Amino acid sequence: MSEKNNKPEEPRLVHIPGGSVTSPQGFSAAGVACGFKASGKLDLSLLVSDSDCTAAGVFTRNVVVAAPVLLDRQTLQSKSKGIRVVATNAGNANACTGEPGMAAAKEMQRAAAELFGFDTNQVLILSTGVIGVPLPVEKVKAGLRSAAGKLSRENGEAAARAMMTTDTRLKQLALRLNTAAGPITIGGMAKGSGMIHPDMATMLGVITTDAAVPSGELPALVLEVVNHTFNRITVDGDTSTNDTVLVLANGASGISLESQDSWALFAEGLKAVCTELAKMIVRDGEGASKFVEIKVTGLDREEDAQVVARTIATSPLVKTALAGGDPNWGRILAAAGRAGVYFNQSAINLWIGNLDNPSLQLVRQGIPTGYAESKAAAIFKRPEIVIHLDLGNGPAEVAVWTCDLTHEYVTINADYRT
Amino acid sequence: MSEKNNKPEEPRLVHIPGGSVTSPQGFSAAGVACGFKASGKLDLSLLVSDSDCTAAGVFTRNVVVAAPVLLDRQTLQSKSKGIRVVATNAGNANACTGEPGMAAAKEMQRAAAELFGFDTNQVLILSTGVIGVPLPVEKVKAGLRSAAGKLSRENGEAAARAMMTTDTRLKQLALRLNTAAGPITIGGMAKGSGMIHPDMATMLGVITTDAAVPSGELPALVLEVVNHTFNRITVDGDTSTNDTVLVLANGASGISLESQDSWALFAEGLKAVCTELAKMIVRDGEGASKFVEIKVTGLDREEDAQVVARTIATSPLVKTALAGGDPNWGRILAAAGRAGVYFNQSAINLWIGNLDNPSLQLVRQGIPTGYAESKAAAIFKRPEIVIHLDLGNGPAEVAVWTCDLTHEYVTINADYRT
Repeated sequence: MSEKNNKPEEPRLVHIPGGSVTSPQGFSAAGVACGFKASGKLDLSLLVSDSDCTAAGVFTRNVVVAAPVLLDRQTLQSKSKGIRVVATNAGNANACTGEPGMAAAKEMQRAAAELFGFDTNQVLILSTGVIGVPLPVEKVKAGLRSAAGKLSRENGEAAARAMMTTDTRLKQLALRLNTAAGPITIGGMAKGSGMIHPDMATMLGVITTDAAVPSGELPALVLEVVNHTFNRITVDGDTSTNDTVLVLANGASGISLESQDSWALFAEGLKAVCTELAKMIVRDGEGASKFVEIKVTGLDREEDAQVVARTIATSPLVKTALAGGDPNWGRILAAAGRAGVYFNQSAINLWIGNLDNPSLQLVRQGIPTGYAESKAAAIFKRPEIVIHLDLGNGPAEVAVWTCDLTHEYVTINADYRT
Repeated sequence: MSEKNNKPEEPRLVHIPGGSVTSPQGFSAAGVACGFKASGKLDLSLLVSDSDCTAAGVFTRNVVVAAPVLLDRQTLQSKSKGIRVVATNAGNANACTGEPGMAAAKEMQRAAAELFGFDTNQVLILSTGVIGVPLPVEKVKAGLRSAAGKLSRENGEAAARAMMTTDTRLKQLALRLNTAAGPITIGGMAKGSGMIHPDMATMLGVITTDAAVPSGELPALVLEVVNHTFNRITVDGDTSTNDTVLVLANGASGISLESQDSWALFAEGLKAVCTELAKMIVRDGEGASKFVEIKVTGLDREEDAQVVARTIATSPLVKTALAGGDPNWGRILAAAGRAGVYFNQSAINLWIGNLDNPSLQLVRQGIPTGYAESKAAAIFKRPEIVIHLDLGNGPAEVAVWTCDLTHEYVTINADYRT
């Protein structure tokens, strides 16, 4: 199966124009409207693999967990090698619905399996929407029947659209990876427009690949990648009852990741897909007018750097200053200082600037540099910026991505159900 | 000195109408304008005791700490029994100002001491205002001289006004405590209108009493009381570089707290004063339109209950739902679930209602009760409400106080420095 005739000028990772979860070989998809969204928009998404998939999932760490999350965890524990279907409904989270909610989730899973003659444990299900409302499972079943008739490789985008809730932008992409053994493809779709807004049940991500991935090694890789991508974004610090990322590998490319090099490339590609989807979610954050990278360096432990970065990224005061285009750096230092991580305040350095170019230093050794306020204000008014906080000591380096806290966020979330 | 002729109908704790930090005997105060506030409003506050005070302080836990906090900690360590003066400026936090900032803080302390012929370590200082701007200490010294000429028992209110920054309401009160040995008085003033907005350096509290308090026992009591009052409030989850609560006891009443009963009454009175000041801060929270008590019960450990309550109280999604008057309880459960504390989601009970009367149960054993949406919406539209979350198992019970997250909060904080 392996080929080594890649043209030398072809990069190892290539974006596929218009790529989606059906860009990898052997996947088909559909998106239909089954009546959850009053607007009549697509709200039921179906993804089917022609052959058995190795699968892995990362789920919300929330103690309050939706029925589909509990069911998928069970399914992946019992059978991580034969997955064929991911069925998603948008508009009802099936969370805080008790035993009837679990029964509805199982019925959704069984209905999807029966459509294709699969075992129930070959189906994963996702739900996103309002919490605490019983899932109208008959609507879901009718939607599944309709979607099954529309499955095609052209409908990857429809499947992605059918997962959206308050999202304003489609979130999907695909990459071709030129391994030494030949090309493989990774596709992905996601929804989310708050790292979470739990009533709409937050972020979901589904990644497909036609690589043949050893089932024993996928879960650890997915966890590692998610920790560095989807778990590095925050819109409002809330995490939901339904957050899920699934990765399905069907092997249809005939390329297996046997060499260390091809495994490393797959890991790099998976991380790239998840990074882009994660950034798409932040850019589509509720009410967001700015994309902001918070970079923290100069601590011993990466965990500590992440706590500091997240505390800054979720500070309402930092986020409103960003919304106002006000480079009020005292708020950044104060947020860092309350993160619960010790550092020496007279070792603090702080820069701001364009993404990948934190060019203006505001604080040196804990005190202001005498920078020009007009320059700082001009940077804070840009739509994409980086804030780089260095705490003076240690090799850790962490970046998280966030957005600003605007009037529009308050409007969306104060008035959401009314 | 002791008297036992209290009338039987007099309660043990009595509010003093118009009470302030100068209601206890032996304290005088002044508030003047020294030029920090562009509006010309009072911005320098002076409080002086006729005799040496036992004093204790609780300070911010932020790693980024303002110079006056560092200096007061030193002062109280060296001399907790002879404090005579608290001098406060509003408009400049003297934070992130490095060594020059510490020199300015020491000069402010020395100037206040010299006015009265005290030792420098008999003076505590407080600063609140913008971070990262050098303290114009000459302005402060001129203000101190002016204030010294205006000291009187009538100027307790002026002293409280001179601490205010974005506060819209005066925060002060005094209680008379009828101990078995005779009456003593506790007065207090505070500023804060965000549990914090670090650029305005958050909350300050100064409590006075004419009781004679053993210096060895005061710090532990103050820490305990602050943990149950000022540390139970949150406006936006941020904590500042300058947060300070000081308690000064000058013994001028001649009543010492020797009996266990009178000590308990003093502790109760101190807690009552701090509770009222803390609630005043939340009611004056930036942009707040609602006062909300979050009560969490049914866990084994009080620390866990507090973490859950605080996570709910700082959730942007819960706070925007409160602003919108939308009883979107899924957000409350989702916030509780991400607090990092384990509980059984099918044991959750949730009530809402008026303060002290959580009359409407929304969730029973983890699922909605079938309550009338109109009733829940009517409660969430009220200006003062309680949310009571019971997690089903354990004796812990914690209440925290918070406010909603409104458009006005975004306006205040996005545009603050412009």
